[in-house]
Amino acid sequence: MTSSVVIPRPNPLFDNVPKDVWSMINEAAALAEKESGKKITNLGQGFFSYSPPDFAIEAAKRALDVPMLNQYSPTRGRQSLRNALAKSYSPFFNKAINPDTEIVVTSGANEGMLSAFMAFVHPGDEVIVFEPFFDQYISNIQMPGGKVVYVPLHPPADAAFKTSSAANWSLDVKELENAITAKTKMIVINTPQNPTGKIFSKQELQIIADLAVKHNVIVLSDEVYDSLFYTPFTRIATLNEDIAKLTISVGSAGKTFAATGWRVGWLIANAELITPIAAANTRICFTANSPLQEACAEAIELAAHNDYYETQIKSFKNKFEILNSVWDELGLPYSIPEGGYFVLVHFGKVKIPEDYEFPKELLSKPKDFRVAYWLIREIGVVSIPPTEFYIPEHAHYAEDFLRFAVCKDDAILEDAVERLRGLKKYIQ
Amino acid sequence: MTSSVVIPRPNPLFDNVPKDVWSMINEAAALAEKESGKKITNLGQGFFSYSPPDFAIEAAKRALDVPMLNQYSPTRGRQSLRNALAKSYSPFFNKAINPDTEIVVTSGANEGMLSAFMAFVHPGDEVIVFEPFFDQYISNIQMPGGKVVYVPLHPPADAAFKTSSAANWSLDVKELENAITAKTKMIVINTPQNPTGKIFSKQELQIIADLAVKHNVIVLSDEVYDSLFYTPFTRIATLNEDIAKLTISVGSAGKTFAATGWRVGWLIANAELITPIAAANTRICFTANSPLQEACAEAIELAAHNDYYETQIKSFKNKFEILNSVWDELGLPYSIPEGGYFVLVHFGKVKIPEDYEFPKELLSKPKDFRVAYWLIREIGVVSIPPTEFYIPEHAHYAEDFLRFAVCKDDAILEDAVERLRGLKKYIQ
Repeated sequence: MTSSVVIPRPNPLFDNVPKDVWSMINEAAALAEKESGKKITNLGQGFFSYSPPDFAIEAAKRALDVPMLNQYSPTRGRQSLRNALAKSYSPFFNKAINPDTEIVVTSGANEGMLSAFMAFVHPGDEVIVFEPFFDQYISNIQMPGGKVVYVPLHPPADAAFKTSSAANWSLDVKELENAITAKTKMIVINTPQNPTGKIFSKQELQIIADLAVKHNVIVLSDEVYDSLFYTPFTRIATLNEDIAKLTISVGSAGKTFAATGWRVGWLIANAELITPIAAANTRICFTANSPLQEACAEAIELAAHNDYYETQIKSFKNKFEILNSVWDELGLPYSIPEGGYFVLVHFGKVKIPEDYEFPKELLSKPKDFRVAYWLIREIGVVSIPPTEFYIPEHAHYAEDFLRFAVCKDDAILEDAVERLRGLKKYIQ
Repeated sequence: MTSSVVIPRPNPLFDNVPKDVWSMINEAAALAEKESGKKITNLGQGFFSYSPPDFAIEAAKRALDVPMLNQYSPTRGRQSLRNALAKSYSPFFNKAINPDTEIVVTSGANEGMLSAFMAFVHPGDEVIVFEPFFDQYISNIQMPGGKVVYVPLHPPADAAFKTSSAANWSLDVKELENAITAKTKMIVINTPQNPTGKIFSKQELQIIADLAVKHNVIVLSDEVYDSLFYTPFTRIATLNEDIAKLTISVGSAGKTFAATGWRVGWLIANAELITPIAAANTRICFTANSPLQEACAEAIELAAHNDYYETQIKSFKNKFEILNSVWDELGLPYSIPEGGYFVLVHFGKVKIPEDYEFPKELLSKPKDFRVAYWLIREIGVVSIPPTEFYIPEHAHYAEDFLRFAVCKDDAILEDAVERLRGLKKYIQ
């Protein structure tokens, strides 16, 4: 007897979801390793190849030994962590942050941003997102019924020929102004930015802030790379009192402490914004995991006194130097990162043999997907194709670039450099 | 200068959210402790007063020492955990569960259930929930625009006078049938049930399954207390192939390993159900935390060989014996739990002085809120008022009961018994 049961159709948002870029690239890398029997160097996804600092690991182990640190935390996050965050962030915001009303801890920054969208985006509301965007923003805006309005960052005009600062990925103010309508509820910014490495300048932030205040729009400022900046970093919430009232600032223990698998993030905003976000967060995840929250609380306290942040910045500057030396050597132009741990490299000069065979699923994708695939198989280095972070109409802005992550051991970066030298014969 | 900025209104779901029962009761307990200077015995919220087993804690510490176990896990969960779950659950479901397609690991069972609702509930769809319900179900159904349809479980007719099995909390089949419409997309069941302690009988499950199959409705079976049963426990998915196809079974490391703060749960269902749920889960939390997932994988493997589950059941039977002895002594009737770690006690015989003063916020609440408040302040024991798990129209079913949690050290339960003896003078 065959069953007559028919499983109901899922929501369109989650029905026949195409393979995400992370899975696609990771699977291509795994297959290439299997087929070649050789290890591939992974500078693709932004996970760290190394452990969080010892002081954070030790704090986590100590937390596990306390019975109550294995049970539910308060829904807004552990008091210890909110206190540590308030203490560490207050100087950055030039105000005393209230740990009880102005902070909510979430199961990763991503779930925090979803909570913010769930709390404030009504069906039909519009949310402005700059391209290239972090892919999770899109579905998170769509889940409460929001409509994403895209405003592209433009690559430097001479990106094909010249290495220059990531600052030169530019915002067309007119495009932003035109994107704002009566339905605009939020603007999402990401600074330091993934994948460009751009830090929005004070002037750019001022323009965005003025528009947000004028139109009474909430700014969700994704600042998860806020401890990794190599040029001055301004937080939009610090520009004036009006924009401070409208800004939600996002932070991440995963990025700060090389612990992307800990799933601890936080949002900082005024109480009127945090209250409904905390209510949404309670219903989404109830509370973030307790032992790693406690470990983060301790780690934040300790990092303030052990030069952790300074050492990190120094270490990442060095990592960029290791990797970027090969682009200089090869004459491939790139955007010099102002912050974060990604570098965008222009591959226009690299000529892939015309008869190279690609899997069928890549033929309908923009060029960078094929270049990334070829780079995995022929050079043995994994990168991420950045058109994934643009809508198809805007893919042309990014289809010549690839994104490389440097949150890896120096030896891995050195190995990548060695392999990437193999590009030489493909460059004319 | 006063700011002209007006913060936009949040979504109605998260706007002016009334204080949840957990915060209300925990705050009342904290205040009573502060005012009296005496420790209150907390049998309210269902967190454990003790640590997860040593073998789980040790596994967590080992995981923290592995660099990659501090980074992102695959979005469906770590392979090790999915393998352990498939191995441990396959015998319960009389089939070989495929760890790659039929399981998704989530940031707690709660977030897993939200993922299921997000994946399958379209705006306007109806979801049937039995009262008393776990409060998170409601908002989680409403988030994708679903409408909750309530079907009450009825207390035993003689609950005011007689202690009897929690099995006697009964389902009116006609009420369930009448609740099903063309818009019904899912039915949520919870067995072993919180707060009644009921385990749905095979016959009851068969009735629900037949209706679900007849109307092509998904069953979300919340089985988070599945390792704690004191009478035979049937899983609805095992009744026949049709209902197996339509059932999503929910499990929780928090409940199984006394680790409510670890935020690791899982859903098991056929691949056609799991695929969109996994897509939703990816967008909600991306992935559950890695080190505690790995610890759960090891703990599940170890628990299969060290009599953990048998010991747990024995220990919980003993905990119920300790606490329930005082109800017998006082002549207060209760529902003998068939599973889980809660007991519902009928407080109809307890007479609170008529001039007792309650905080204003409790005056508009059903009677059990005031009894719970009084019990905290005068007897020093925290419980949960179960009308929170009924809609106001149905509150009368539960307003004479209080819920007590026994997932506490024996000494705490013994202390509670000692305090509860103080009820004697209020019973006529």
